[in-house]
Amino acid sequence: MSHSSSVVRSIGVDVGGTKVLGVALGPTGAIVDSFRLPTPQVSDTSLGRPVGSSVADTIAEVLATLATRGGLDLSTCALGLGVPGIVAFDGTLVFAPNLQGAIGANIGALVAERLGRSEIAVDNDANCAAVAEHHFGAARGVDHAILLTLGTGIGGAAIVNGVLLRGANGFAGEFGHLMIDRSGPECPCGSKGCFERFASGSGLGHLADVAMREGTVDMASAASPEALLTAAAQGNAGALAVVDEFCWWLAKGIANLTACFDPSLVVLGGGVIEGHHLIMEPTARHLATAIEGGAFRKPPKLVPTALGPEAGAVGAAILGERAQP
Amino acid sequence: MSHSSSVVRSIGVDVGGTKVLGVALGPTGAIVDSFRLPTPQVSDTSLGRPVGSSVADTIAEVLATLATRGGLDLSTCALGLGVPGIVAFDGTLVFAPNLQGAIGANIGALVAERLGRSEIAVDNDANCAAVAEHHFGAARGVDHAILLTLGTGIGGAAIVNGVLLRGANGFAGEFGHLMIDRSGPECPCGSKGCFERFASGSGLGHLADVAMREGTVDMASAASPEALLTAAAQGNAGALAVVDEFCWWLAKGIANLTACFDPSLVVLGGGVIEGHHLIMEPTARHLATAIEGGAFRKPPKLVPTALGPEAGAVGAAILGERAQP
Repeated sequence: MSHSSSVVRSIGVDVGGTKVLGVALGPTGAIVDSFRLPTPQVSDTSLGRPVGSSVADTIAEVLATLATRGGLDLSTCALGLGVPGIVAFDGTLVFAPNLQGAIGANIGALVAERLGRSEIAVDNDANCAAVAEHHFGAARGVDHAILLTLGTGIGGAAIVNGVLLRGANGFAGEFGHLMIDRSGPECPCGSKGCFERFASGSGLGHLADVAMREGTVDMASAASPEALLTAAAQGNAGALAVVDEFCWWLAKGIANLTACFDPSLVVLGGGVIEGHHLIMEPTARHLATAIEGGAFRKPPKLVPTALGPEAGAVGAAILGERAQP
Repeated sequence: MSHSSSVVRSIGVDVGGTKVLGVALGPTGAIVDSFRLPTPQVSDTSLGRPVGSSVADTIAEVLATLATRGGLDLSTCALGLGVPGIVAFDGTLVFAPNLQGAIGANIGALVAERLGRSEIAVDNDANCAAVAEHHFGAARGVDHAILLTLGTGIGGAAIVNGVLLRGANGFAGEFGHLMIDRSGPECPCGSKGCFERFASGSGLGHLADVAMREGTVDMASAASPEALLTAAAQGNAGALAVVDEFCWWLAKGIANLTACFDPSLVVLGGGVIEGHHLIMEPTARHLATAIEGGAFRKPPKLVPTALGPEAGAVGAAILGERAQP
């Protein structure tokens, strides 16, 4: 055993639509190493390879890099994968709007095969993030919590009675695709007016576009979600109104989840939240009246993620540890 | 101990907006006696009495009748209450659109006081119904199930990992108040476009009204939800179209709950469902495409309630049994 093998206890990989991020956890659970590669955007089928092969190759390369640097044996060490979309218990990616090239592939089996091991812990990326936040982040010790990651879409997960909710098939926590407005914009999932059409990064872009067409916000401020948040932070009234509308939708979605789960805590993460204190306060204000019986009860507390963009990879590593014999 | 005391094992009471229904369970859990009284519609405050006193009196009267007939001692026997709305763990009715006169009352404590006992098991009526269906009804042995009772509104409950989900405060399962259409009709809860504005008995009435105004259904068929279902059963094309629209909304709401919980089973009960086979098949058909990734996975199975309108009272009795020392 090399010196460094005693320092790394597990590896987790978060597979996103644009990048594959791996982290190595040290003895306390802190990240001691990380490595990332772009997510391959090729069609395995047209290359004559099994679906998911290219993604599995990239994941295996990320794992190999971290294992070599940490002195771990990939055939036996604790490791886990977080993948976007609906994942079955056996590791099959059943549906994934942001990783369409790997739909139907058993990512867990493909990667395990490359590493010479029998199995790998695999779960949805937001589920992984929730495990990490519950294990040693913003939801530590909380029995009923919701996690929402506001990126291009919305990743979601629920902690229920102190454990991650997976459901009958592993598909629970797909909160981005709750229909919240039947007349809303079309969603890549095939439905209309999904929560993530309003309360994600792309949702913010949509709301900014509408405001620009209505003439309530200028073109420069509406150029991107980032531009809009910057303009709002500088006090631009039109941009602030769009942010307030965004927060209203976010609160309405959280109210729906409160009706379902009655959480005491909602952890918010993702690009729209990180570094943008503009979002939390108006969302909490709207939430207080958006929940059923708001005059008679307290809404769940809203807090930002403690582990940030690495939460998914960290949680994947924890799931890997829990799956060790 | 009288002869009959060995026959009745517990008593459950379901407090509705219009009636208070009590049942006595025999050794096998079957209903061996029942008794009901109208729900009092008086204002305790204007009578100078504590809020909830009249409802508590009526509940105590129903319990006394069943206890006398069954030879039970109300100060010690197993008994429970199901109440409409949001109920705290301590038995306080926090919010109840259909029992407004008792909002804020600790119904459990008021009834316990009248019976000379220290406490009584109290939960939401739909939660009670789900406990009964899970204990020996349509959801027996199912680890992940949803129950929806389609009456004036929608009662909801979730079985998660084999147990009833109560949440951080006891308020989980309020599915009727998920916002599903931001431009939908106003709801007595204070929000707009809630699931129960479309997929309950009153929702069916709303859809029939709209169709009548648009001239697609005749006035006689649109007179009431019952009239509409009868006309549809007789093949009236306009009425069938309204029923299909109703089923579409019901399926969309179930798709939202599937995104949250990933149940393998959804149990449907309530006046709109009972005896109306018109609803189940179209709802299942819409559900297959309404769920995210419908082309790649199976939707949850839809089944009618096994215990019917008494499920809430039966479940209250079971909760009472479980709470016995």
